[in-house]
Amino acid sequence: MVNSDYVNTLENRIRQRIDNKTKPHGSLGRLEELALQIALIQQTETPSLTNPHLVVFAGDHGLAAEGVSAYPASITYGMVNNFLKGGAAISVFCRQNGLALLVCDVGVTGTFSANADALVKYKIRPSTRNMRYEPAMTPDECEAAMDAGKTLVNGVKYRNGNVIGFGEMGIGNTSSAALLMHRLTSLPLEKCVGRGTGLNDAGLAHKRDVLQAVADQYSDLDDPRAILAAMGGLEIAAITGGILQAAANEMVILIDGFIATSALLVAHALNPAILSNCIFCHQSDEAGHGLMLDFLHVKPLLQLGMRLGEGTGCALAYPLIKAAVGMLNEMATMDSL
Amino acid sequence: MVNSDYVNTLENRIRQRIDNKTKPHGSLGRLEELALQIALIQQTETPSLTNPHLVVFAGDHGLAAEGVSAYPASITYGMVNNFLKGGAAISVFCRQNGLALLVCDVGVTGTFSANADALVKYKIRPSTRNMRYEPAMTPDECEAAMDAGKTLVNGVKYRNGNVIGFGEMGIGNTSSAALLMHRLTSLPLEKCVGRGTGLNDAGLAHKRDVLQAVADQYSDLDDPRAILAAMGGLEIAAITGGILQAAANEMVILIDGFIATSALLVAHALNPAILSNCIFCHQSDEAGHGLMLDFLHVKPLLQLGMRLGEGTGCALAYPLIKAAVGMLNEMATMDSL
Repeated sequence: MVNSDYVNTLENRIRQRIDNKTKPHGSLGRLEELALQIALIQQTETPSLTNPHLVVFAGDHGLAAEGVSAYPASITYGMVNNFLKGGAAISVFCRQNGLALLVCDVGVTGTFSANADALVKYKIRPSTRNMRYEPAMTPDECEAAMDAGKTLVNGVKYRNGNVIGFGEMGIGNTSSAALLMHRLTSLPLEKCVGRGTGLNDAGLAHKRDVLQAVADQYSDLDDPRAILAAMGGLEIAAITGGILQAAANEMVILIDGFIATSALLVAHALNPAILSNCIFCHQSDEAGHGLMLDFLHVKPLLQLGMRLGEGTGCALAYPLIKAAVGMLNEMATMDSL
Repeated sequence: MVNSDYVNTLENRIRQRIDNKTKPHGSLGRLEELALQIALIQQTETPSLTNPHLVVFAGDHGLAAEGVSAYPASITYGMVNNFLKGGAAISVFCRQNGLALLVCDVGVTGTFSANADALVKYKIRPSTRNMRYEPAMTPDECEAAMDAGKTLVNGVKYRNGNVIGFGEMGIGNTSSAALLMHRLTSLPLEKCVGRGTGLNDAGLAHKRDVLQAVADQYSDLDDPRAILAAMGGLEIAAITGGILQAAANEMVILIDGFIATSALLVAHALNPAILSNCIFCHQSDEAGHGLMLDFLHVKPLLQLGMRLGEGTGCALAYPLIKAAVGMLNEMATMDSL
C-alpha cells in the first residue's frame, strides 16, 4: 500500500518529529507507534483524521436455525432498528466520540423503514442459507456482498472520510467467524469456537458439534473467497470487501473484535499488505480472538473484556487514535523549552 | 465513603439497569464495572460526569542534585511553562477529551508569569530539600502541600466538577515514588526502582545506590505522613491531600501512573476507603507500577506502554469513563426491541 523508497526517508523524518516532542524518548508508547503508522498510511509528517465513520454491516445467518446462538435470529432485525434509533452501545459511543454511524443491511430478514438517515440498503438476500446443508452464499452472492462493502467505503472516501471502522450485527455470526478462523489460521476448530453472546456449557458443546459437521463438509475448499462464500456471512463478506477497498483507498482501518477480525483474515489472505493500514482496537473476550491476533502478529489497543461486536471496540479506541495524531501535530518541541 | 445499607439495594438496581440494556449480559466488560462504580460513588442509578478536571501538581526535588534522573531539574520549570502554553502531551489530550487543565506550582524552582489562566500558585518552597542529607520536607511543609491539594480539589468541586484526575511534573520524582512504594508496600527496594525518564544501566545502578542510602536513613519512620515528608515530594504530597479530599467530596478520582499511584499509596494508608472512588487509568511502563497495582488489587483500564506522567493516562482514559456513564444513561432496554 506504500511506496517503500519514499517511506524510508519519510519514516525517519516522522520518527525524528516524534522524538523531538516535549517528552522522554518513547514515553508515549503505543501512541507513538500509532502516530507513525497513520503518518505512513497517509505518507505525510502531518497526518490528519477527517470525517471518521463507523459502518455496521448487518445480516442474518441460516445456521442460526441449528441453535448455535443464545439469542433468536429476530434479534438482528431488532438491533438494526435500535442502531437506527440511536439506542445501541455503538450508537452511544459513536455519538460521544464523533464518528458518523452508518448501518448497512446486506442480509437482514425483514424490511426497514425508508426514512432512517443512517440506513444504507444493499440487501443481497434475506439471511444466508443454512450452511449445515448448503453453502451459506453462492459465489455471486458473496461477491455482491463484498461489492456492497467496497461501494460503501468509496462513499465514505468521497465524503472526505479517511478513517473507517467496521462493525457487524448478525445472530449466529460467531459461528461463521470461528469456521473462517479455523480454515484461514489452520488452528484446531475447538480453539476457534466460543460462547458467542453467552451460550452455557451444553449450548457450547452443541455449537461445537454443528460447526465440526460444517467444517467437515467444506474441508476440500482452499480459495479464501470460496471459504468465505461457503461458511461466511453476508455482513462478514461486506466487511472483507470494505477492508480491501479501504486499504486501496489509503484509509486508516479500525478493526474491532472476533467477527470483524474473521473478515480481516479473509482480506489478509487475499492481500497481506492491507495489514499496514489496520489498527486493532480491542481484544474481545470471545475465546479465539486473542489467537487470531497472535496469528496476525498484532497487538490490540484495548483489552476491556468486552464481547459485543457492533464495532464498539473501534468507537471506544478512536480517541486514542486521535490523541496519537494530536500528539504529532500539536505538541511542542524540546528546543522550545 | 458510601452508606452500605442503602448501597445493597441501590447496587442491585444499578446492576439490573445495566443488565437490561440492549446487549448480552456482561458483554461490555470493564465498562459495566465502571458504570457500577461511578453510580455507587454518586449513589444514583443515573450518574453524570460534570466539569471534569485534570490537575497537574509540579515541584522540584532536592535529590535531583544526586544525578538520579536522565534530565536536569530545570526541565520542571520548562515543562510547567509548556503546560501553560498548551504544548505538552497533557495539554493536547485534555483539549481533545474535554478536561479542564489546571497546573499547580507547589514547589518549582523559578517564578511563573502571573497571567496564565491555568496556573494555580501554592508554592510551599522552591524544591524539596535533598533527602540524601535531610528530610525532603518538614512536617509543616508536607502538611501545607497536602492542604494545597485539598484546597484545589475543593475549588473544582465548587465549580461543579465531580471528576478529577491528578498529574505531576517534577524531575527526580520517580525516586520519591520508588521510596514511598518500598515503605508502604514492604516490597524490596530493587523492585520499586526503575529507569524513570530513561536512565541507562549505569544511571539505574547509581539511582539504586542513592535510594538505598535514603531508605536506610529513614527506615525508622512508620507513620505514612512522616514517610511522605521525609521521602516524598511537594507535588506528591499535594496529590495525596487532593485524593483524600476528592474522596471526602464523593468525587470520581482518576489515578495516573507510577508517581500518582505512590501518592495514592500514602492516601490509602491514611484511609483505605478512598479506593472505592478511584479509577486506575493506565499501567505505566515504569518498572514497579504493575506491582503497586497488584498490591492494591486493582486493574488498570489502559496498558499503552507509556511512562510520561503529567496525568496523561487519566486524560486518555477519560473517554472510556464517559462511555461507561453514557451506556448507563443513553442505551435502550431489551424490552424496547
